[in-house]
Amino acid sequence: MITPFKENGDVDYDKFVRNIERWNQAELTGYLVLGSNSETVYLTEEEKLKLIALTVKHRKKERVVLAGTGMESTRETIRLTNKAADLGVDAALIITPFYYGGKMNDEALINFFTEVADHCKIPILLYNVTKVTHISLLASAVEVLSKHPNIIGMKDSSGDMAQMVEFIRVRDKQFNLLAGTASAWYPALALGIEGGIMALANACPNECAQVQKYFNEGNINKARELYLKLYPVNKGVTTIFGVAGLKYSCELLGFDGGWTRKPLLNLTENEKSSMKEILKCAELI
Amino acid sequence: MITPFKENGDVDYDKFVRNIERWNQAELTGYLVLGSNSETVYLTEEEKLKLIALTVKHRKKERVVLAGTGMESTRETIRLTNKAADLGVDAALIITPFYYGGKMNDEALINFFTEVADHCKIPILLYNVTKVTHISLLASAVEVLSKHPNIIGMKDSSGDMAQMVEFIRVRDKQFNLLAGTASAWYPALALGIEGGIMALANACPNECAQVQKYFNEGNINKARELYLKLYPVNKGVTTIFGVAGLKYSCELLGFDGGWTRKPLLNLTENEKSSMKEILKCAELI
Amino acid sequence: MITPFKENGDVDYDKFVRNIERWNQAELTGYLVLGSNSETVYLTEEEKLKLIALTVKHRKKERVVLAGTGMESTRETIRLTNKAADLGVDAALIITPFYYGGKMNDEALINFFTEVADHCKIPILLYNVTKVTHISLLASAVEVLSKHPNIIGMKDSSGDMAQMVEFIRVRDKQFNLLAGTASAWYPALALGIEGGIMALANACPNECAQVQKYFNEGNINKARELYLKLYPVNKGVTTIFGVAGLKYSCELLGFDGGWTRKPLLNLTENEKSSMKEILKCAELI
Amino acid sequence: MITPFKENGDVDYDKFVRNIERWNQAELTGYLVLGSNSETVYLTEEEKLKLIALTVKHRKKERVVLAGTGMESTRETIRLTNKAADLGVDAALIITPFYYGGKMNDEALINFFTEVADHCKIPILLYNVTKVTHISLLASAVEVLSKHPNIIGMKDSSGDMAQMVEFIRVRDKQFNLLAGTASAWYPALALGIEGGIMALANACPNECAQVQKYFNEGNINKARELYLKLYPVNKGVTTIFGVAGLKYSCELLGFDGGWTRKPLLNLTENEKSSMKEILKCAELI
Repeated sequence: MITPFKENGDVDYDKFVRNIERWNQAELTGYLVLGSNSETVYLTEEEKLKLIALTVKHRKKERVVLAGTGMESTRETIRLTNKAADLGVDAALIITPFYYGGKMNDEALINFFTEVADHCKIPILLYNVTKVTHISLLASAVEVLSKHPNIIGMKDSSGDMAQMVEFIRVRDKQFNLLAGTASAWYPALALGIEGGIMALANACPNECAQVQKYFNEGNINKARELYLKLYPVNKGVTTIFGVAGLKYSCELLGFDGGWTRKPLLNLTENEKSSMKEILKCAELI
Repeated sequence: MITPFKENGDVDYDKFVRNIERWNQAELTGYLVLGSNSETVYLTEEEKLKLIALTVKHRKKERVVLAGTGMESTRETIRLTNKAADLGVDAALIITPFYYGGKMNDEALINFFTEVADHCKIPILLYNVTKVTHISLLASAVEVLSKHPNIIGMKDSSGDMAQMVEFIRVRDKQFNLLAGTASAWYPALALGIEGGIMALANACPNECAQVQKYFNEGNINKARELYLKLYPVNKGVTTIFGVAGLKYSCELLGFDGGWTRKPLLNLTENEKSSMKEILKCAELI
Repeated sequence: MITPFKENGDVDYDKFVRNIERWNQAELTGYLVLGSNSETVYLTEEEKLKLIALTVKHRKKERVVLAGTGMESTRETIRLTNKAADLGVDAALIITPFYYGGKMNDEALINFFTEVADHCKIPILLYNVTKVTHISLLASAVEVLSKHPNIIGMKDSSGDMAQMVEFIRVRDKQFNLLAGTASAWYPALALGIEGGIMALANACPNECAQVQKYFNEGNINKARELYLKLYPVNKGVTTIFGVAGLKYSCELLGFDGGWTRKPLLNLTENEKSSMKEILKCAELI
Repeated sequence: MITPFKENGDVDYDKFVRNIERWNQAELTGYLVLGSNSETVYLTEEEKLKLIALTVKHRKKERVVLAGTGMESTRETIRLTNKAADLGVDAALIITPFYYGGKMNDEALINFFTEVADHCKIPILLYNVTKVTHISLLASAVEVLSKHPNIIGMKDSSGDMAQMVEFIRVRDKQFNLLAGTASAWYPALALGIEGGIMALANACPNECAQVQKYFNEGNINKARELYLKLYPVNKGVTTIFGVAGLKYSCELLGFDGGWTRKPLLNLTENEKSSMKEILKCAELI
């Protein structure tokens, strides 16, 4: 879920709630608040907790709420996750600590996630997002962590398909693998993962849900065809234009994007034209 | 196809021919001589031409012979490819020039492949092998080149699935996409590519052929299952142990690996034990 | 300045103060609290402010106090820096925001640092630490920012000597360039930068000061000789063993290292032996 | 030394000789034929030998001639180097084999260079050019190789100053370290290396010689000042425009650049204007 801001930089909670109400109409399974497209690193703890509370309150009743509550230190991660749990979050998505990336080896990461899982009131999912962290959870660590009863899965946004194969091979049976970026989603589905959590679903939730639905029904050619059509849009809202591109696409597709928070730049007029063109080519507008 | 050497560094042509005779018994579609696992960069032109001639002579009659005849300069690539054509090769696999990688932009690569395709007597396939070249053909270049009547396809060994999606989207209809490494093969098949040319088929040709056969028959679960089982073997003979690991696996699986040529090292005893263990886990020995 | 922790993870303020008192005896020009070797990302705001206050209080009177108060968002950076200013800090070291590294282009970074410098009560220094951030300030941005009256310099920890040459060429005359890592320090001094802020000075402050002193006196051969002798120690406390290696070296050299905070691991016994050996080779113990 | 080509792609030997005659007027110590700026990978063996013979014949009598005779295989490297020796070359510059870069570990590279040095009639220099090879000789290998009586030095074009410090620390006394790129040259001189072999000297040999002369005389400020002035020119003829930029600069500065060989592109008109502007800013034209 994106976080709309006002021009003055304050969180625009009204727009945030309006988005939830519209996503409630779409065929989604749940929501991730405070993800890597939520400008979470720009938010104060007070803002984070308010966004969590609003998500829990306004989501359609049966839908799952995940919150990205990972921090660099073990103790802060546990503290914030348990605050989120108290607000009614179903599970937490915990990013690999990465500031001292060169030292985040298997032992450090296994210790970290084990201690977090041991001390959190809600289940956790591992979050592997190499584009941001410049480190990757290895299969050797996932093999160990997937056996922990309170670690229920992983969102893998690395896009590394060879590594995904290894995750699939070594994981414990009850451990869910989710694609974290639409670019790797369809090939990973073909390999046998369970689903996805992706930025693109902010802007075109029904189309994303449709790919998964076609695939689950065994309608593989239709799933692939729709996936290939959406691919350039995903590239636009991630690699090329990032969060600002995603927010602008949301605006064009009936949601509230709002401003980015500084230092993140909004799209220029030229960039807006390119993004609009991409949406047109995909017949979304 | 691997190139077996004698301990003194000479090409072991007898072993080379014996391998072909054994591969002729397996369910393969064709052969690639002088690929990136053939230690081609260590061969003199005389040796290259002899290996080509032997492959053409000994292959099972209906099978296709491809030869890797790309050189750094345009003129040498054309000259060598036409020599290969005269020896009976069906098509040439042309690697992207990469010594001046920073300057091999779309314009340079489009010019290069167009001029090569224009002047060669046989069709060519593009060869994108980023692990070696540290550059990648972009979709924008593939879009143009796939329309050339004498460029019939591409072997993509990059393993970059997002880029493969783009290749699939932009290519001309008659242009064949082939996975160049087993690690990306199954996901790429699911995305709609045509097949693969891979190191792994040296050591276990029938198993590789079976994955493709299952997939083509729509037997997707069996294809995936076998693919996942072979995956660690592929990792062993590429990423972990490379050509020396591939040659040793060939020895264990009934083919002739022979020595590597210097400066490439043969496996140590410890490495041999690890490679053997990987083959055992995959139930190949 | 390192931040010593207790075994239970709490900040050990007593050890922190004892270190300052010992560094006060050494030939240092000033202190940097909350740098990248201070495990700053693991600290709460309350802990940060207490460490700042203690540094200001206990430093030898004429010495400069810098604080690393950069945050990902512009508004939080300004807020925290002004709190540090109120506590008596002389200048702030502001890291380039990097979570959305792909979007931190010249425009974003120039906007960020300009707005921060405009709204802070104390002068700021740019902090370019590519090993952590995976982005680099470019000379084109430094050229603009070095003219801002409230931006007084840069700590460059990139170790990229070619880029340092460009910084030297384009900077405004009044803008100070400081090496941020001992590995690049002597060559950068030779190129004409002003000095350095480096992890190594935690463990052997007098030796570091001596290199600079020899250099400033024109005693170039002695400066280089001592620098070359210290080089492996610097590699040990940065590249090889990182913060944990630095803390252990501090322990061996008469300072208080304390524990690291989780998830950062302390040295194993084997690593301790290696680090000790490095210090012995450099005749520091 | 650049290799001028005719528009039809043939080597322009007349221009090549005219360049030598002009460089003979400049304050150079010697020549490197078949370096990484000579488009060596585009040359046939016949062309290579002819260029070597012409260099030996036309160089000013006391000047050293080096030839880049490294090939991927050990046996070909020895064969070609000894042919160069027979033509009168003083020493050979041997690039690290790099096609199977992931396997070129210390053992492989030490074996390679040792066997080459053992079997060549002339002394050799190691050539570390990471931009091309994507691998680097490590200090651990250089420590061993620098003791070999027939390995007299290394041209390091990596630009990695931290690694240069390690080379300086571990090398045998009689082993010469030469900067391979002007961007790292002055800082490396300050660290104590012996000199440089650099592309830039094709276009402005006297200016390059002057930097070294000032430095050797202890005139450090003048050396640095001239170095800083030349720096953007070096960046233009290496990083930005590469060989084509170097050849065009040679044309503008009184030498014969000639055409590049395909697939390498010549400069566009816009690029020529930029390159000319850089030369003007450095007051070379």
